Amino acid sequence: MERKLRADAEAAALAAIDAVLPDKAVERALKGKRFPGRVFPVAVGKAAWRMAAAALRTLEAPVEDGLVISKYGHLGDTLPPLRFMEAGHPVPDENSVLAAAAALALTEDLRGDDTVLFLLSGGGSALFEKPLIPLGELRDITKQLLACGADIVEINTIRKRLSAVKGGRFAAHCAPARIEALILSDVLGDPPDMIASGPVSPDSASCADAQRIAEKYDLVLSDAARRCLQVETPKRLDHVGVQIIGSVRELCRAAAEACRGMGYEPILLTDRLDCEAREAGRYLASVLRAHAGEGGKLAFLAGGETVVHLTGDGLGGRNQELALAACEGIRGLDGAAVLSVGSDGTDGPTDAAGGYVDSESFDALCAAGLDLNDVLRRNDSYHALAAIGGLIVTGATGTNVNDLCIALLDR
Amino acid sequence: MERKLRADAEAAALAAIDAVLPDKAVERALKGKRFPGRVFPVAVGKAAWRMAAAALRTLEAPVEDGLVISKYGHLGDTLPPLRFMEAGHPVPDENSVLAAAAALALTEDLRGDDTVLFLLSGGGSALFEKPLIPLGELRDITKQLLACGADIVEINTIRKRLSAVKGGRFAAHCAPARIEALILSDVLGDPPDMIASGPVSPDSASCADAQRIAEKYDLVLSDAARRCLQVETPKRLDHVGVQIIGSVRELCRAAAEACRGMGYEPILLTDRLDCEAREAGRYLASVLRAHAGEGGKLAFLAGGETVVHLTGDGLGGRNQELALAACEGIRGLDGAAVLSVGSDGTDGPTDAAGGYVDSESFDALCAAGLDLNDVLRRNDSYHALAAIGGLIVTGATGTNVNDLCIALLDR
Repeated sequence: MERKLRADAEAAALAAIDAVLPDKAVERALKGKRFPGRVFPVAVGKAAWRMAAAALRTLEAPVEDGLVISKYGHLGDTLPPLRFMEAGHPVPDENSVLAAAAALALTEDLRGDDTVLFLLSGGGSALFEKPLIPLGELRDITKQLLACGADIVEINTIRKRLSAVKGGRFAAHCAPARIEALILSDVLGDPPDMIASGPVSPDSASCADAQRIAEKYDLVLSDAARRCLQVETPKRLDHVGVQIIGSVRELCRAAAEACRGMGYEPILLTDRLDCEAREAGRYLASVLRAHAGEGGKLAFLAGGETVVHLTGDGLGGRNQELALAACEGIRGLDGAAVLSVGSDGTDGPTDAAGGYVDSESFDALCAAGLDLNDVLRRNDSYHALAAIGGLIVTGATGTNVNDLCIALLDR
Repeated sequence: MERKLRADAEAAALAAIDAVLPDKAVERALKGKRFPGRVFPVAVGKAAWRMAAAALRTLEAPVEDGLVISKYGHLGDTLPPLRFMEAGHPVPDENSVLAAAAALALTEDLRGDDTVLFLLSGGGSALFEKPLIPLGELRDITKQLLACGADIVEINTIRKRLSAVKGGRFAAHCAPARIEALILSDVLGDPPDMIASGPVSPDSASCADAQRIAEKYDLVLSDAARRCLQVETPKRLDHVGVQIIGSVRELCRAAAEACRGMGYEPILLTDRLDCEAREAGRYLASVLRAHAGEGGKLAFLAGGETVVHLTGDGLGGRNQELALAACEGIRGLDGAAVLSVGSDGTDGPTDAAGGYVDSESFDALCAAGLDLNDVLRRNDSYHALAAIGGLIVTGATGTNVNDLCIALLDR
């Protein structure tokens, strides 16, 4: 039974990810589109390679030059004439700075009839950076924000002001060239200025917001960083066109369809999940327990992006932690399973996309000599799931539209 | 709009609580029932008065003597010949010890054809106690368990072994008299030995379990307490009949019916909610946001009992904290509201049953000079809700079957 459940959960997750690969969406957006002059693709983010490949296939104008900037291991075959650059994520590194410098050089001195085709996906915030403070300090501030559980909106509000390419500043640099931006959203609710810290979007947050966040989390900041938080970002960018071409909502819908196709009745709980990862796991387990008596095949779906407040120095990611935390609540509940994956195929600083647990997982953990609460306290979900065969490994998927949880019940 | 929402949410909650008052269930259980000899009612718990009153109305046998033991302020009019005793909750006090002593004296030297009609409801664990260690230490251990977020199953596993009346030991004392127990469940899944620490039920937990919990939470224990944890509890009690007459499942069903009656489509998420209170609130907010685009009137229901990990010394309760934590997620979302209440009418050490928030609550908090995260860190939901008119006050309701959350959407 549980083997079948796992196969179903994985199949539904893969089908959902497949449905939100950016290829078709990019093609739809570019098909038949005319540009007055030259077109320079600049693809940034975890889905950059796939978005760029689709654009090259579809663009009717010739392309002279362009850039594909992605996370290490997230690039595919060469796409001449585009140049590839890899950089650090979730913490920006020296290559993130080189990538931004290359993009700034490419888009320097463009003409008014040129177009920068900006293909943006999640992860761009770290991968593409020209910091206004030393990179070490920027990295430290990012780490502070991640460790204290700040959400992506808060993180980006701070980072925009510490950067010469974020919060609309990259778009300001590209003028007078026009910018056409196609965006794959990894921020709940799809606010364009928050995705990858909005390099080409007017910033909806203000200096006052940034100040509030710095105080809320007691951020340790240098005087230079403090001064940056007081410089306002562009609030209007008339030469930019923005289109959201995919998000977690479609991911959830596709998962529901896939589950229905396997005989489950799909129930979408939320596509705005944003609470603590382990508590979301416990919540999903409580949903499964509550419905266990009803019989039939049910698939509860939740999309979004949970947060993890680090309390240990183990290895893991929010999806792995969510799945693992669910295993106690469905212990011994035959026919119940929870799978959680990042649609980009990576979860935290690990090679896994997420995790899977079922009715047998809690006892398997005990048998492996592991205590669930201890594992969670150490944030070591990766090793615990590895010990019970609960890691989900997909490799880089080519898309990035938040996370998907599938909670199955087959009674 | 929001005023209507609040009226709807409160009406649904009150109707649900009304439907699980123990009167009818006690009457059903006792109607036409014959007892071979004398009957001694012993009612213990937050719903003791109402259960005892219903029993006296229904019992066909004459009653010579009996006890009603409840929380301060939870007793109604006299019920002669029953004697009333009030005691401390959630922390047992000297009156809890007097109450247990009275119950032990009443049931001393009974005959084999006598029956102890044991009417048990939640809260009994604290209200009825003969500690095997000094009361001060017992109270301290209970506080340790509550503060570290141990669940009720864990708390009771420890407390049973520190008591002469729990874990089946009260039943052992009553022999040779027969015990008929009617139980209103406040423990998810209704395991009889866990409700009020199971005074008349064989204990399903072992000394090894108790040991594990003591280690998990690093409990500070005296040598005497350590020795108690090593003494096994009764595992078989043939002279006891147990019947669960109500639980959170019925509470949720009744809430769903009430919502349907007001034009909402009810959706039961879970009746086994057991995660961190504030994260459950955020989860419910994410459910409302996700469904906001669909139009119509929806009522999401979740029953159970969340936990709170104390980080501050403010005033509040798990229902108040859950509701308050939801307000950020539904900020500005017209037609969205979250209400959470304890079915017993009390939430934490406060005079409120729970809390209510809607789309305007977050801004109201800001206007009152309150920061949501700061309030949550201080566990001060009571004062924050009081400041924005979000407290739900019902007074003692006469029942106790866990908590109910109602998340409404009227778009």
